[in-house]
Amino acid sequence: MTFNEKLLAWSRQQDSLVCVGLDPELGKIPGLLLNQADPILAFGKAIIAATHPYVAAYKPNLAFYEVLGKTGWETLEQTLKFIPPGILKIADAKRGDIGNTSRLYAKAFFDYFQFDAITVNPYLGYDSVAPFLEDETRGVFVLCLTSNPGSQDFQYFNDGSQNLFQQVAKKVVQWNKKANCGLVVGATHPEELRIVRELAPDLPILVPGIGVQGGDLELSVKYSTNVHGELALFNSSRGIIYRSNQSDFAEQAAQAAAELKTAINKIRSQK
Amino acid sequence: MTFNEKLLAWSRQQDSLVCVGLDPELGKIPGLLLNQADPILAFGKAIIAATHPYVAAYKPNLAFYEVLGKTGWETLEQTLKFIPPGILKIADAKRGDIGNTSRLYAKAFFDYFQFDAITVNPYLGYDSVAPFLEDETRGVFVLCLTSNPGSQDFQYFNDGSQNLFQQVAKKVVQWNKKANCGLVVGATHPEELRIVRELAPDLPILVPGIGVQGGDLELSVKYSTNVHGELALFNSSRGIIYRSNQSDFAEQAAQAAAELKTAINKIRSQK
Repeated sequence: MTFNEKLLAWSRQQDSLVCVGLDPELGKIPGLLLNQADPILAFGKAIIAATHPYVAAYKPNLAFYEVLGKTGWETLEQTLKFIPPGILKIADAKRGDIGNTSRLYAKAFFDYFQFDAITVNPYLGYDSVAPFLEDETRGVFVLCLTSNPGSQDFQYFNDGSQNLFQQVAKKVVQWNKKANCGLVVGATHPEELRIVRELAPDLPILVPGIGVQGGDLELSVKYSTNVHGELALFNSSRGIIYRSNQSDFAEQAAQAAAELKTAINKIRSQK
Repeated sequence: MTFNEKLLAWSRQQDSLVCVGLDPELGKIPGLLLNQADPILAFGKAIIAATHPYVAAYKPNLAFYEVLGKTGWETLEQTLKFIPPGILKIADAKRGDIGNTSRLYAKAFFDYFQFDAITVNPYLGYDSVAPFLEDETRGVFVLCLTSNPGSQDFQYFNDGSQNLFQQVAKKVVQWNKKANCGLVVGATHPEELRIVRELAPDLPILVPGIGVQGGDLELSVKYSTNVHGELALFNSSRGIIYRSNQSDFAEQAAQAAAELKTAINKIRSQK
């Protein structure tokens, strides 16, 4: 089964296109966890236990583990063990280096951590992405148009007929020989989501930027899903994991994930 | 002292523009180290001890430590301790994420690991780079034109008057408010090094791609250094650290570093 088939099958099984971003910070998690041996692990475990019925994927952002130093990777490794089978594990790592180096990043995230997929940065071009594409069962979400203000700086660089992000989408479609490529397009750009979906009808799109970043959920779901209302994942991080920092934080996160799942499915059902 | 002043002062002190890339792999280091408790650490320690008289900087590439899993960051942390004061520590991490996340990468590399500088990817634009720029004593080398074949895919995307990599160089010049920005331009593109040096007369340029990747040393030194033959660093990784995999590996690495220093200084002296 290719990664893209897996994404489709697993999200159908869960009846959900929700991706929960794991961005755990010591200063933001509930104070009651701070006396645990590993508060970040305890937080991740509780969030996963509470939210997993409602989600298709978890997306740990590596920065939040790297900032912990040498214990961070142990925490990440242990956290991943709490994600049940049938739910995607996406490394939000935004890596990319020359081929000789990307090969090792691929080993780190796919062989060592056993992630199902990774986010990568396209700036270094094909040979920087190729090592991540070798195993058809592992997915690669290439940054296309990001959700942040800085997306204006280079991603709209225009050659007279198209923007850079459109060229990225086209190239990634060509790279998708093993049906394991996807794209990242922020919900803060709904019109561009429509453009990218047209350029890449068969690629999964990972959509960050709903929730705290203010992306438009209705238009994002409408434009980024394929004709069957599938093949997209909508990430919320802070809006789910930090809905409460009291003793009800896990219940509140579950509630937020359930609401998001329902809201997305309602929009999909109207397609 | 800003990072760019520090780079100038320290490279003068060492009379060297050599940067040694630390890309240690278990399959490539001398077999005689494999019975050490931490062979990668033992290798790094020996390479640094032998080469440090000839170099201005060390540039560990994070991928080579991440692939080791949870022990990798401990190995990196310990390796950095063997780099003497007065020699730059550059994290070749090629990070970049939305501002809220880049902030944590900056903490990881500057506060936790105490690197002097980091390589970052420009694709996500200003707010993804800004958190790395806050401390004027820490440097940021932004990828501009990379040494690999994939640099053709997007970095030459042209808006009718210029390529994307030129636009990146111009933007980074604007971001250089605290005199701590630099650029990465591969030695495999000597003509473009000249173009970038013209666009960014006051920025340090980190030049990978000499050695195994086949970049032209003479033209690279000539075009990337400033009018005084300074403000550039030339990285060699495999060509130095893997010159021998026998018991003389450290001596051979020192020899390679010394030769590279001499070759570069000869070209600089002709400016």
